Amino acid sequence: MTGPIKIWTYDWVPDEPRGFVRDLRLRWACEEMGLPYEVGTVPFDGRETNHLDRQPFGQVPFLDDGDLRLFESGAGLLHLARKSDLLMPSGRVEAAQVEQWIIAALNSIEMVTMPWVVLTWSGQQSDAIEGWLDKRLGQIEAVLSEREYLVGDGFTAADLLMADVLRLDLLRAHGARPASEAYVGRMLSRPAFKKALADQLAHFAAADEMRKEETAR
Amino acid sequence: MTGPIKIWTYDWVPDEPRGFVRDLRLRWACEEMGLPYEVGTVPFDGRETNHLDRQPFGQVPFLDDGDLRLFESGAGLLHLARKSDLLMPSGRVEAAQVEQWIIAALNSIEMVTMPWVVLTWSGQQSDAIEGWLDKRLGQIEAVLSEREYLVGDGFTAADLLMADVLRLDLLRAHGARPASEAYVGRMLSRPAFKKALADQLAHFAAADEMRKEETAR
Repeated sequence: MTGPIKIWTYDWVPDEPRGFVRDLRLRWACEEMGLPYEVGTVPFDGRETNHLDRQPFGQVPFLDDGDLRLFESGAGLLHLARKSDLLMPSGRVEAAQVEQWIIAALNSIEMVTMPWVVLTWSGQQSDAIEGWLDKRLGQIEAVLSEREYLVGDGFTAADLLMADVLRLDLLRAHGARPASEAYVGRMLSRPAFKKALADQLAHFAAADEMRKEETAR
Repeated sequence: MTGPIKIWTYDWVPDEPRGFVRDLRLRWACEEMGLPYEVGTVPFDGRETNHLDRQPFGQVPFLDDGDLRLFESGAGLLHLARKSDLLMPSGRVEAAQVEQWIIAALNSIEMVTMPWVVLTWSGQQSDAIEGWLDKRLGQIEAVLSEREYLVGDGFTAADLLMADVLRLDLLRAHGARPASEAYVGRMLSRPAFKKALADQLAHFAAADEMRKEETAR
């Protein structure tokens, strides 16, 4: 069964997360592969409960693709990446390595960066989390000092996800890690990233206009 | 290329993490499928640097399977689960849902439980992390109140991983969540889990004996 790819995100978000809402991971993947997609929205207001039938944690994105309905940006990315060898090499060993690095980005890096960001945003701090963060960022810096891409000689879905995890302004401003910074810079200079980012920003800017019109009415 | 499955773990760990070292995830998967495997070890002492060529974060487990060498327990589990339909349904939609729930366990649940555990072990606390934990545990409780298994009518690799994330004593003692507790109980009553757990405990107990002999010599 085929059908249009549909990436679901919020109808609107405040300024701060714009450019970082995780629908960008799926937009970016589609742009890299030249896959057309539609964007669907759920209300940001009431997000804790209003789409639990699609996403049990009240988050975005989720994805429709034919008869598949998937939540978790990592799962959506794995699914989309398998559609071509542009993001997932066709070789069995390299494909497994891409999966491995996607899981590493989600469960070894983001599992540490995200709570640190949550603490920082809340004006709280913890020596334990800070030490864990510095260790992990140092370890990925060591990896990126020795290679241009995480798997093989070219860009894969693993780079897409790792770069998206590492590109947060707060992280980039936290200590000097030249290899990580250069890696993030290379990944963000890709036309597909720029297109995905511009489209996400335009989506939320259009939502601002709609809100203004509703208020003026 | 084929070869024995080899699960790598530490040669020894202190008492506290015994039964919870993540090699258990891969042992459990092999036991569910009746797959033979060997156990390899790297030294616990010096773990931050002594096996970075196999695991860039100095952790365990990692996995050998023929020409595949994988780190990240989630990646090893995905790889092993695809060997049969016992842990990963053969249907395309259900297989994608298993992946989705594996990613959810790693990036929506464990991304919150693990920093909370790190804080708690360190004698630190944070309202922000505590609130995030309670929200996520409440959300997974709601999911588990409505189903026996995460995907379809039977046990899959998604249950293996979610149960392993939720079974930490600290979490089970943190608030009453009857559906989660019943779910964890059902999963841990599986013979394959019991075998994997007993084998991990025996592995580290044997290491104690070796250390005693070395000390006595």
